[in-house]
Amino acid sequence: MYDGTNYAGWQVQPTQITVQSSLEAAVEKLCGINTRVFGSGRTDAGVHAKGQVFHVDIPTKFNESKFVQGINSYLASDIRVCRAVIVKDDFDARFSARRKEYRYFISTADVADPEKRLYRYHLGADVDLEAMRKSASLLIGEHDFVSFAANRNQPEKTTVRTIYSLDVSKRGTDVCLKVSGNGFLYKMVRSLAGHLVEVGQGKRNLRDTKEILSAKKRTRLVVTAPAQGLFLWKVSY
Amino acid sequence: MYDGTNYAGWQVQPTQITVQSSLEAAVEKLCGINTRVFGSGRTDAGVHAKGQVFHVDIPTKFNESKFVQGINSYLASDIRVCRAVIVKDDFDARFSARRKEYRYFISTADVADPEKRLYRYHLGADVDLEAMRKSASLLIGEHDFVSFAANRNQPEKTTVRTIYSLDVSKRGTDVCLKVSGNGFLYKMVRSLAGHLVEVGQGKRNLRDTKEILSAKKRTRLVVTAPAQGLFLWKVSY
Repeated sequence: MYDGTNYAGWQVQPTQITVQSSLEAAVEKLCGINTRVFGSGRTDAGVHAKGQVFHVDIPTKFNESKFVQGINSYLASDIRVCRAVIVKDDFDARFSARRKEYRYFISTADVADPEKRLYRYHLGADVDLEAMRKSASLLIGEHDFVSFAANRNQPEKTTVRTIYSLDVSKRGTDVCLKVSGNGFLYKMVRSLAGHLVEVGQGKRNLRDTKEILSAKKRTRLVVTAPAQGLFLWKVSY
Repeated sequence: MYDGTNYAGWQVQPTQITVQSSLEAAVEKLCGINTRVFGSGRTDAGVHAKGQVFHVDIPTKFNESKFVQGINSYLASDIRVCRAVIVKDDFDARFSARRKEYRYFISTADVADPEKRLYRYHLGADVDLEAMRKSASLLIGEHDFVSFAANRNQPEKTTVRTIYSLDVSKRGTDVCLKVSGNGFLYKMVRSLAGHLVEVGQGKRNLRDTKEILSAKKRTRLVVTAPAQGLFLWKVSY
């Protein structure tokens, strides 16, 4: 689990503190070895995680609960390792992942609760959940999601992904988007969230969703929702 | 509402940023007048509030919703004014208060959730809720609570207070103490919480609670629970 507020994302950067570099520093302190920690995927600066998974090669003298206790003692309190499991040699946190779930939280409350300020996109107005659900249903399944992705330096082999489910729910004044799929493109979840929020506000409609998806081209019609509302929730193997 | 993490408590201090000084600065920017803001009571450094109330004298040209919007635009996002009401001249946020509710949150989870790290006392072990409830029931009613108070520079006229209710509940891995009374002494809620946690851990028992209360003297038998678990929840008038 991590609160991404104070990190320049998951991936090691030359001059900034990241979640990956923090974990590697903690592994080095605990195990005495300077080694790479491999995540299930990157998260952007400011994005949080409840269920990020990483693998690391360390000497077997560390049992699972001692590893958890030990590494947490070397981490800042905004990163916590919940569980460790000894895996087979061919396990890879990234390539063995079969399904990922992200959740995106939007606050519709008039006034943003200070306790949630780092973990919600504060919209401050109600949204049309039914309109959002209709647009969401168009996005489920196997599609080329390039219209909902941002360019990254390294181009993807394919921009086709499968979304297994995309639910829109509301609890109190919080709207939650739960999206589960076999993988996600760069900034894809935040782009889906940004678009669905605009649909919920009446700025876009079902026809726009259809057109954007079939255009297979990222344009300004899709906005990227802020990082702070996003959580990598679960990775399944 | 405020997240007390970054403030030296409610009350104005000569050299530190406090919630009161932040509100006064925002009132000055909004209304152009340098005036005192009067709270229902102080909160310590690191203590949060969902329902703190203050009164302030400002020109009547500000209607209620414009005041809320305006003052929030001058406050950092960890302080938010939820509501404003024009009151009679004899209303006083402190002296008109009839009942206050505090909530104290304890996490029993093995690993502390980063998202909650600033809003929970992370105990990391289970507690005996029934033992806590039995001790809590002894504390309800009108008592001299001096054994559960810390000394402040200005002594209180009386250390007798009435606790109307003191509930111990659990939701997931979070234990919540809800205490409602006609007023609370300095550090009283954190002292009650510290003692009840020790009862829950089996370090103290019902007889200790009885003896501590009847001793009418603060001793080392009572520990003060950390500030970060405490919220001033509601003030009733």
